[in-house]
Amino acid sequence: MYSQEELKSLVDNTITALSYNMEAPELIDPVKYILSIGGKRLRPVLALMSCNLFTDNIESALIPATGLEIFHNFTLIHDDIMDQAPVRRNLPTVHHRWNVNQAILSGDVMAFVANECFLKTPQHLLSKVFRVFNKAAVEVCVGQQLDMDYERATFVTHDEYLRMIELKTAVLIAISAKIGAVFGGADDENSDLLYEFGRNLGMAFQIQDDLLDTYGDIKVFGKTSGGDIIANKKTFLYIEAIERASPSLRNKLRELFSGKEYDPATKVKNVTDIYDQLGIKRITENVARDYIKSAFSYLDKAESGKDRKTELIRLADSLIGRET
Amino acid sequence: MYSQEELKSLVDNTITALSYNMEAPELIDPVKYILSIGGKRLRPVLALMSCNLFTDNIESALIPATGLEIFHNFTLIHDDIMDQAPVRRNLPTVHHRWNVNQAILSGDVMAFVANECFLKTPQHLLSKVFRVFNKAAVEVCVGQQLDMDYERATFVTHDEYLRMIELKTAVLIAISAKIGAVFGGADDENSDLLYEFGRNLGMAFQIQDDLLDTYGDIKVFGKTSGGDIIANKKTFLYIEAIERASPSLRNKLRELFSGKEYDPATKVKNVTDIYDQLGIKRITENVARDYIKSAFSYLDKAESGKDRKTELIRLADSLIGRET
Repeated sequence: MYSQEELKSLVDNTITALSYNMEAPELIDPVKYILSIGGKRLRPVLALMSCNLFTDNIESALIPATGLEIFHNFTLIHDDIMDQAPVRRNLPTVHHRWNVNQAILSGDVMAFVANECFLKTPQHLLSKVFRVFNKAAVEVCVGQQLDMDYERATFVTHDEYLRMIELKTAVLIAISAKIGAVFGGADDENSDLLYEFGRNLGMAFQIQDDLLDTYGDIKVFGKTSGGDIIANKKTFLYIEAIERASPSLRNKLRELFSGKEYDPATKVKNVTDIYDQLGIKRITENVARDYIKSAFSYLDKAESGKDRKTELIRLADSLIGRET
Repeated sequence: MYSQEELKSLVDNTITALSYNMEAPELIDPVKYILSIGGKRLRPVLALMSCNLFTDNIESALIPATGLEIFHNFTLIHDDIMDQAPVRRNLPTVHHRWNVNQAILSGDVMAFVANECFLKTPQHLLSKVFRVFNKAAVEVCVGQQLDMDYERATFVTHDEYLRMIELKTAVLIAISAKIGAVFGGADDENSDLLYEFGRNLGMAFQIQDDLLDTYGDIKVFGKTSGGDIIANKKTFLYIEAIERASPSLRNKLRELFSGKEYDPATKVKNVTDIYDQLGIKRITENVARDYIKSAFSYLDKAESGKDRKTELIRLADSLIGRET
């Protein structure tokens, strides 16, 4: 059985070994850049771990799993343009280091590099795996659209918000687990359990991400703390606060998120004070924990040896307890 | 045997009947918009015609062929952002009618809608067809990169320019013909002949496109006449003119393309005068004609009944004589 660290290093090596068309190095430099500033490689590691639940032979899943990481980074490049984000993982975003046109085009080519990775799927699984991946790719775009729509909306419900993050974030994590299971030879029932495991894990992960943007430590988390507040982003914290606040507090919060110019530090402090008054940190932690619990209940049902599941449980625990 | 008009109408109907995820209509409105302002549907029509060279049963090729059109329109949306083009086919471009973020995201989703179309390829052809398509998709990105690089370069050779348009334009037309042949049951030799037919046709098509931007009629062509000159675009005409001009004329031309502010109409007139002095129109027409001739020589070698080829010849002729 492979450990998380072994799988991450397999993925890192696969990414480093990728060969690109060298006729236009300018196209590929940003691709190498975004892939080199790396992170956890959550999606391919999860895929390989799910594969490893059912088989020791994970070799054939390695390049397609890497395709998940490449697709994910393509969405990061384009999302960062749309969000006008200057920094990702403590480094300049692609459109900031190069320019918007370069970021559009280098992002585009990554979508096809991801396809190329999926085309390495063994013949008998190709159609199934590619369909699962591509459906998720469309859903990620829909999620990003809802995210943009909700930035402009005056009111977003709890359920709308959850559906948005499901599409934008959780679905890709879900299919990472599912595709891994398919490569591992799991039947439909088991690969669907892995999908649900990944989906719930993804929900927890995104809600945790919202939490850390306001309550996390910049050195650990790699983003400006309070960036979501400064950008008037309607995160899970904001949605919950609006639903739970008294009319006067709600007005104050809306005023702070209305797009008026505030000193960033003061704004972050004022919004965080409101969140604190309403106990939003604890509420959010509980919701994330419930999703993790639900994820584990699906994993529990999957037909694989108990000891095989320890790495997936460890991965999930490390995600939700990321700050420590 | 199907006529060009019948095939175009089959493609138009397939496009109209496409169903999209309706959870975010804002995402899909620009997709429908760009697909509705249509044009010739060159790529899918060519694919179906190539298929029809070898079989009467073109049904299974219809949706994958439509994927070529969707992919092409995805590149148009993103290219228009990069070129800051306000108008396409006499209508506002997507980023102009909506905004840049919407154009990025709606473009992105089209890449996956195109994938979805290719996933309708019958199982035994899926891997082959998808590989051919995806290789071209990467090459189109490389071509666009070279195009952007050449905009900034002080000198671009004739050969560099031809390679750029080969990647950016001709390759997609080439694989349209090739994929059609594969669907038609053609062997490797014949499908490669169709690739070469399409590639040469694509070269002629792009060179003709450069010609029409300066010498075409806006009512017929649907673009601002002289737009390339105003945008300092190094077209085939410019490259040829630089190579053939006397030192003093070359300096004058470079000066006009240096990015200095000129009155657009005067600039177009001055550049066109230089082109006229050097006989660039005739030279360009001849090069385009040579590519068409070469295209026909490949088509000639393909093993299919002579009468089957008449529609492809008619299509090629209509492309190169588009102005009339």
